[in-house]
Amino acid sequence: MAKKVITMGEIMLRLSTPGHQRFVQANSFDAIYGGGEANVAVSLANYGFDSYFVTKLPKHEIGQAAVNELRKYGVHTDYIARGGERVGIYFSETGASMRPSKVIYDRANSSIAEAHVEDFDFNEIFKDAKWFHISGITPAISKNGTELTRAAMKAAKANNVTVSIDLNYRKKLWTPEEAQSVMRDLMQYVDVCIGNEEDASLCLGFTPKGLDVTSGKVHIDGYKKIFEQMMEEFGFKYVVSSLRESISASDNGWSACLYDGKEFYHSKRYDVRIIDRVGGGDSFASGIITGLLDGKSSADTLEFAVAASALKHTIIGDFNHMSREEVENLVAGDASGRVQR
Amino acid sequence: MAKKVITMGEIMLRLSTPGHQRFVQANSFDAIYGGGEANVAVSLANYGFDSYFVTKLPKHEIGQAAVNELRKYGVHTDYIARGGERVGIYFSETGASMRPSKVIYDRANSSIAEAHVEDFDFNEIFKDAKWFHISGITPAISKNGTELTRAAMKAAKANNVTVSIDLNYRKKLWTPEEAQSVMRDLMQYVDVCIGNEEDASLCLGFTPKGLDVTSGKVHIDGYKKIFEQMMEEFGFKYVVSSLRESISASDNGWSACLYDGKEFYHSKRYDVRIIDRVGGGDSFASGIITGLLDGKSSADTLEFAVAASALKHTIIGDFNHMSREEVENLVAGDASGRVQR
Amino acid sequence: MAKKVITMGEIMLRLSTPGHQRFVQANSFDAIYGGGEANVAVSLANYGFDSYFVTKLPKHEIGQAAVNELRKYGVHTDYIARGGERVGIYFSETGASMRPSKVIYDRANSSIAEAHVEDFDFNEIFKDAKWFHISGITPAISKNGTELTRAAMKAAKANNVTVSIDLNYRKKLWTPEEAQSVMRDLMQYVDVCIGNEEDASLCLGFTPKGLDVTSGKVHIDGYKKIFEQMMEEFGFKYVVSSLRESISASDNGWSACLYDGKEFYHSKRYDVRIIDRVGGGDSFASGIITGLLDGKSSADTLEFAVAASALKHTIIGDFNHMSREEVENLVAGDASGRVQR
Amino acid sequence: MAKKVITMGEIMLRLSTPGHQRFVQANSFDAIYGGGEANVAVSLANYGFDSYFVTKLPKHEIGQAAVNELRKYGVHTDYIARGGERVGIYFSETGASMRPSKVIYDRANSSIAEAHVEDFDFNEIFKDAKWFHISGITPAISKNGTELTRAAMKAAKANNVTVSIDLNYRKKLWTPEEAQSVMRDLMQYVDVCIGNEEDASLCLGFTPKGLDVTSGKVHIDGYKKIFEQMMEEFGFKYVVSSLRESISASDNGWSACLYDGKEFYHSKRYDVRIIDRVGGGDSFASGIITGLLDGKSSADTLEFAVAASALKHTIIGDFNHMSREEVENLVAGDASGRVQR
Amino acid sequence: MAKKVITMGEIMLRLSTPGHQRFVQANSFDAIYGGGEANVAVSLANYGFDSYFVTKLPKHEIGQAAVNELRKYGVHTDYIARGGERVGIYFSETGASMRPSKVIYDRANSSIAEAHVEDFDFNEIFKDAKWFHISGITPAISKNGTELTRAAMKAAKANNVTVSIDLNYRKKLWTPEEAQSVMRDLMQYVDVCIGNEEDASLCLGFTPKGLDVTSGKVHIDGYKKIFEQMMEEFGFKYVVSSLRESISASDNGWSACLYDGKEFYHSKRYDVRIIDRVGGGDSFASGIITGLLDGKSSADTLEFAVAASALKHTIIGDFNHMSREEVENLVAGDASGRVQR
Amino acid sequence: MAKKVITMGEIMLRLSTPGHQRFVQANSFDAIYGGGEANVAVSLANYGFDSYFVTKLPKHEIGQAAVNELRKYGVHTDYIARGGERVGIYFSETGASMRPSKVIYDRANSSIAEAHVEDFDFNEIFKDAKWFHISGITPAISKNGTELTRAAMKAAKANNVTVSIDLNYRKKLWTPEEAQSVMRDLMQYVDVCIGNEEDASLCLGFTPKGLDVTSGKVHIDGYKKIFEQMMEEFGFKYVVSSLRESISASDNGWSACLYDGKEFYHSKRYDVRIIDRVGGGDSFASGIITGLLDGKSSADTLEFAVAASALKHTIIGDFNHMSREEVENLVAGDASGRVQR
Repeated sequence: MAKKVITMGEIMLRLSTPGHQRFVQANSFDAIYGGGEANVAVSLANYGFDSYFVTKLPKHEIGQAAVNELRKYGVHTDYIARGGERVGIYFSETGASMRPSKVIYDRANSSIAEAHVEDFDFNEIFKDAKWFHISGITPAISKNGTELTRAAMKAAKANNVTVSIDLNYRKKLWTPEEAQSVMRDLMQYVDVCIGNEEDASLCLGFTPKGLDVTSGKVHIDGYKKIFEQMMEEFGFKYVVSSLRESISASDNGWSACLYDGKEFYHSKRYDVRIIDRVGGGDSFASGIITGLLDGKSSADTLEFAVAASALKHTIIGDFNHMSREEVENLVAGDASGRVQR
Repeated sequence: MAKKVITMGEIMLRLSTPGHQRFVQANSFDAIYGGGEANVAVSLANYGFDSYFVTKLPKHEIGQAAVNELRKYGVHTDYIARGGERVGIYFSETGASMRPSKVIYDRANSSIAEAHVEDFDFNEIFKDAKWFHISGITPAISKNGTELTRAAMKAAKANNVTVSIDLNYRKKLWTPEEAQSVMRDLMQYVDVCIGNEEDASLCLGFTPKGLDVTSGKVHIDGYKKIFEQMMEEFGFKYVVSSLRESISASDNGWSACLYDGKEFYHSKRYDVRIIDRVGGGDSFASGIITGLLDGKSSADTLEFAVAASALKHTIIGDFNHMSREEVENLVAGDASGRVQR
Repeated sequence: MAKKVITMGEIMLRLSTPGHQRFVQANSFDAIYGGGEANVAVSLANYGFDSYFVTKLPKHEIGQAAVNELRKYGVHTDYIARGGERVGIYFSETGASMRPSKVIYDRANSSIAEAHVEDFDFNEIFKDAKWFHISGITPAISKNGTELTRAAMKAAKANNVTVSIDLNYRKKLWTPEEAQSVMRDLMQYVDVCIGNEEDASLCLGFTPKGLDVTSGKVHIDGYKKIFEQMMEEFGFKYVVSSLRESISASDNGWSACLYDGKEFYHSKRYDVRIIDRVGGGDSFASGIITGLLDGKSSADTLEFAVAASALKHTIIGDFNHMSREEVENLVAGDASGRVQR
Repeated sequence: MAKKVITMGEIMLRLSTPGHQRFVQANSFDAIYGGGEANVAVSLANYGFDSYFVTKLPKHEIGQAAVNELRKYGVHTDYIARGGERVGIYFSETGASMRPSKVIYDRANSSIAEAHVEDFDFNEIFKDAKWFHISGITPAISKNGTELTRAAMKAAKANNVTVSIDLNYRKKLWTPEEAQSVMRDLMQYVDVCIGNEEDASLCLGFTPKGLDVTSGKVHIDGYKKIFEQMMEEFGFKYVVSSLRESISASDNGWSACLYDGKEFYHSKRYDVRIIDRVGGGDSFASGIITGLLDGKSSADTLEFAVAASALKHTIIGDFNHMSREEVENLVAGDASGRVQR
Repeated sequence: MAKKVITMGEIMLRLSTPGHQRFVQANSFDAIYGGGEANVAVSLANYGFDSYFVTKLPKHEIGQAAVNELRKYGVHTDYIARGGERVGIYFSETGASMRPSKVIYDRANSSIAEAHVEDFDFNEIFKDAKWFHISGITPAISKNGTELTRAAMKAAKANNVTVSIDLNYRKKLWTPEEAQSVMRDLMQYVDVCIGNEEDASLCLGFTPKGLDVTSGKVHIDGYKKIFEQMMEEFGFKYVVSSLRESISASDNGWSACLYDGKEFYHSKRYDVRIIDRVGGGDSFASGIITGLLDGKSSADTLEFAVAASALKHTIIGDFNHMSREEVENLVAGDASGRVQR
Repeated sequence: MAKKVITMGEIMLRLSTPGHQRFVQANSFDAIYGGGEANVAVSLANYGFDSYFVTKLPKHEIGQAAVNELRKYGVHTDYIARGGERVGIYFSETGASMRPSKVIYDRANSSIAEAHVEDFDFNEIFKDAKWFHISGITPAISKNGTELTRAAMKAAKANNVTVSIDLNYRKKLWTPEEAQSVMRDLMQYVDVCIGNEEDASLCLGFTPKGLDVTSGKVHIDGYKKIFEQMMEEFGFKYVVSSLRESISASDNGWSACLYDGKEFYHSKRYDVRIIDRVGGGDSFASGIITGLLDGKSSADTLEFAVAASALKHTIIGDFNHMSREEVENLVAGDASGRVQR
């Protein structure tokens, strides 16, 4: 029987301009649903887990459409509360070359941002679960979001569920001070921490010692030190980060690194021609969770995660529609792009 | 030189499902901009007036897109304040036959709903203006909306500008009690009142005397009495209403009536095959304003307005893209639909 | 807890030309999934039942897309076997006025047509189920289809599950002789028979006595006699039929009749402006099942079913995306099509 | 072997707004190719004739696209000259209800309008041909067009080819005086004249005697007299006209009448729900030509033509994509629009 | 007069997801027609040959649409037999970066796979023809396909027609053993063999001597030896192969080599940014045929073919819509991509 | 108050094939409006200037659509004359890799090409204006175009307005001899000349001395000499040119150089992944004008212009929808393409 995994957060309606249109050119929007943890939920369902997404959505048809999109891709929606006023929205346009992609948020007062702990039966939710994943966005969306996150993490731990977090600092949602006042405390429940040096600094107030990061660029060698110190300070079992080289909006370099308390791993590096990079980080987190749940080695876990997320960049929308087999093919070295007949 | 006319209210982003899709079927939304008074502003620009729309919109690109859509159709946007958080949104699906069209609002906390009187220089706005039109929606969207409406109406009167209102009761925005506590007082500034018996009852607490309306259907003969009494009670110069016969979501009967203090007029009746009925009432109001600004007779004004609004039902989107000449052709009797080469 | 209901049959990929394009004009096809019993499954999920669809689909992504479409609309797919070669396909173009809609089938050798009884655990499937619905199409698609139907019906009866069938004679799949050799025998398991006089004649070899049907048109009065005789001959608990008046491809009259052994009911009649009539009969069957499962009276069941299916004609695709509440609104008399805000 | 039939004229690029969009709303145009005689050529190919279209088109890819569209639907393009500057264009928007469809022409200086008689080898073209059809548009587009028409008609007659003309007066192209100075003379070559009383008046200066047509509406009884007089004056073998009742842009009544020198026939009348009425007259002409080439009776020819053209109104674009069998089905009485499976 | 060239094989309906969508994301499919030999037929028509495509297609409208697509691009369809049950289908999604394009076949039991030799009059077909091209796919689709291929090749030879084959091994259709049992024998009729080392090994059981190919990669120097040995063993006049370097699904290197019994040629190499690589090999074969039919030198033939097929990779769909002049421009060195005004 | 800037020229309807379709594949065209000077007008409006575009357009709806598109993006249309017969058209397809983009013009006899000097009140137009920009296309479209250009330039100078020209030689419109006979004389009014060595040679008959340009490629060092000599000969204040390296239709190198009479500047160089390169030169001219009007240094002006125009290559359509702030971000060095949230 498939392992039960839980993710909690916001699923938003993403209104994307078609192709590479700028906002002012758009006469229609593609209706895509996504959000940090929802994207992870879909990936985990793709990889064969019993994946449950926890959120709150309005009773109207736009709320229903979000539920339907999750169901379509095999995510269990039994724990989704219904009520509140609105589905969070974000508008997006896809950049190219030196023109960056752009996102406009319209997410305040969404149903999940105004949800209460009582909307959810966390003991039921975490019963028999193996993993709980959340991002740093959910505690940031509102006071209620912070409370929900804390309650869920506690319940997860009480049920012996492994907890991972993707730090994901969002400057539109809170200041570093606000973030740290919440996030540092939450780290006590976290087993697997995903995030780069910048996220660690902003969300956790973490400052690496014995390392000059004034240049803004952390050399891969420095990451080992940073991860060791983070593990020491917060007691994580794993510290992980993807490493994005932003060459342009069309081309990125993509690799990742992981520290498991014993060894530090730097993955293979991919040159990515980007179709849609939104959700890239979430597909990476999903890969890490999958590797660890599968009992893969640290090295194999990292390679699976980085291959999965490299592939995500070639897919339109937030969700990573890659099967486990397709990811393994890339891990095994077939990046030739030959037609599969 | 063209006459200066002012409208004030909210312009929303309407996210419409393509064709007759239901919300849960939609993979994209057509991006349409509209709103009661904005629709009137576009019609008045179409008819050749110097049409100014007053609202507040966020500084970001979605706000800019709303500005651009108004400019595109010739509306002056000089008096639009920029700021605030969001553009109000509504989702719409178009019904057919016995399936009604459906609208889901997501308009709370829009920039105009949170605007202040100080955002606008009403004396500048109404200088040399000939007409001010507003609907019952704007005072309903928020406390600020009520204040804005009152301030604008006062300034209009102080500048000798004719004022029209389309009562337009919206039950999602306020109760009849709330509506009446605001609207009855505002009527002192109104010259031309547009609205049917139901709106008058809900917005103004108006109860016709000597008329049995328990059936819910008012006979055309009853409308004369109602209009006479409304004029007596509120001091309007004109009372006007469109008369919709809702046969189905695909077919409506469409006519209108007007009382000018002397005579009561009932227009020609049109059978309308509906493409999009949103904005039908606004196109009717625009026709009334145009007829009166042009100095047409009451009868001709009414026929112009009802022809204009019958035509609106054949056009996708909120705006009525009909020229003055095209409306006059229909008034003159050419409803044959023969190809114009 | 919601009642468990089972449907079994083929879900096909419908390739529809956009709008009213003819096949030779199409440069793309809308990808819609549907099929008699699958359409019923979706309606039953919409109405709140625990709806399970039983079929076999290939392991590849087109098979997965069919599974996903069912999941999206809340149908349980746990009992779907995976394997075989292909998803059945049908091409469709939508007519208008005197031009009929047209369907081209390409369904031979689909996975379900080549499935075996061993692919399914019918005792597990029907455990705790309340209803089983199937159409006359599934036994017609192949020898295997006949066997599957018989096995399922037997298992349903063995588990005290109510069985309904929609006769649905398809001349492309079998001759009347072939149909009768299979279908007459299967009727022993059927509680609720849905089908008009023509289906009864072709599928069951049924000839009404004391009734002149040479004109091809059966007067509503004749239907009572026919239903009484069918009930006598086959032992049904209910005999039901929709009554379509094919005025043109754009307009139909729509009503239905039902005999419950005691009384004969003829429903309200609707004038339908057609958007897509495919799946109309299936939405009617779903309404009958829902009414009876809900414990509605015969009259109320019939009105619910005919209203539900009238509404289906206004929706693109095979599925009937109407909620229980929306159907009840129409039953209650609101066919005005006024915008629901 | 199929009969060789010749049509000559202009094929234009029609730029149509999608759906019912007005010109000012369009962000894209559907690219459709069509034109009076080209539409006839496609219908004749559909009905199985060896149909050749004669025109001149530029050598560039837009010219090639017009050639390709004709080839796609089975029209022979061997006699199309290549050269000149441009493909004639017309913009079209589709009306609804009381809003008429609208056409904006941009056809001046097209390759065919500037073609010379020497561009074509008419003796080769008409060798072994059975029929030549042209409309009143081609002689109207330019002086060269007039010369081409005359030369083609002469060559047709010299080769014993039956000649039909669809009078088709176009007020944007010439005045009645100009038309008559050209058209009256050309009638000497015409065997079958297609056109209503208005066309006859404008193109031929024909005034019926003993008939009051000041009302603008000719009663069907009057048509017999008119046709008798036209036949007498111009020596036609057949005079034919479709009869359109323009109820609205969405609904038309449609029938036709024919006089063969012996009897006057009035066809069955159809109620048409319009999808696209452009090309309706051309599909009628094609039906007349087909009936006569097939050796059908006058009555059967007329019924075939009116059924074919009623069906055209349900098809998007200029061309009538109906097979001979589909037309015959409607002639035989099946207008029910039932799905053809 | 243009030279008559014959191709024979299957034309399929390709259902392509729009843009880079994965199968599970698609709500519509672009309808494209193509297939190995059909693609060659269109290219040869583009280059000005009298190009005839031989196949069998059902009588229904989807079969007709395939015929129409060939006619549209100038291919003669006189020799296409009509009948049988279905048009072969393949679903395709276009990859990007390290995600490969993917194809799902649904081609069993197509009309051509079930066609018989008697469906075609090969003596008529090859009368006056100059070239016959076929691929290794047609003999692989079915026993009937094998028989058709043999019969056609024999008839071609009997009519002194040059025969080329593109080996094109397809593992979904047959095993290497099956392939060799058929293909080795057919080589006696072949003048020009197109295929790489892998195809030669799988289809012909060919093993190069004195060459280590265990690495899977054949150095260009090795190709000369291989081609010499193939020529010796099978008696070809020319052996040719394209050389694809699969860098990713977005970028390929592209060149080719040819041996004419005297000299071995390696073409210029192109860096290709891929839009759609399906049909790339067919466009190469078309270039070889064109060069040899034109009487170009071996070197020029090769350069024409490799330029033509490089360009194909920039065009959506199976067909190569490049004119002879456009290919020659690239051969002449203009790869700058400057706008051609 | 914003500075008033004037541009004059033709705005055309661009009919673009969707995506990378070739002309013969297109079933629809995207309707885009643009033209050399119109593109500059939109950019200048984007940058906050009071931008007026001067042209003549037909009164019909296609003419109106061109006006609307300009208004939408904030360009003042008060000085646009209405009348004449047609909007100029050009068809475009977008290339990829080694396949060039292609343009087919159909612009003869447009309203602006047939406009007269009397259609415009140049003294009113240039009153209080700061800048006048025109390209070498407008004088080339017709005799009238030449006269209009001369009249406008004279009026500009008489009103002390700075004049810039983008030489833009178009071989489809005139020969070098014709161009020089007109353009050399017009240079007396020009302050800022934009154009590369080839334009200078073709439009101005300019031959650099002491420089070998037979290779067709001018080294950047040579440009300094050329610009010095041009300034000497024609008295310009600035000579400027963009420098395009056409690697392929998908990738270009992009930089620029400027000479201000004192120093010669060569900008930063960008690698551009092209979405749509049409209008690239116009966006460069707009950047130069903006820099100089803002009083930026020569170096800063050049960097702003080259960044602006690099960004244009990533935007679909002729217009450059980049804000001043977005351009400055790129100038400041952020070409990483990171998502802007």
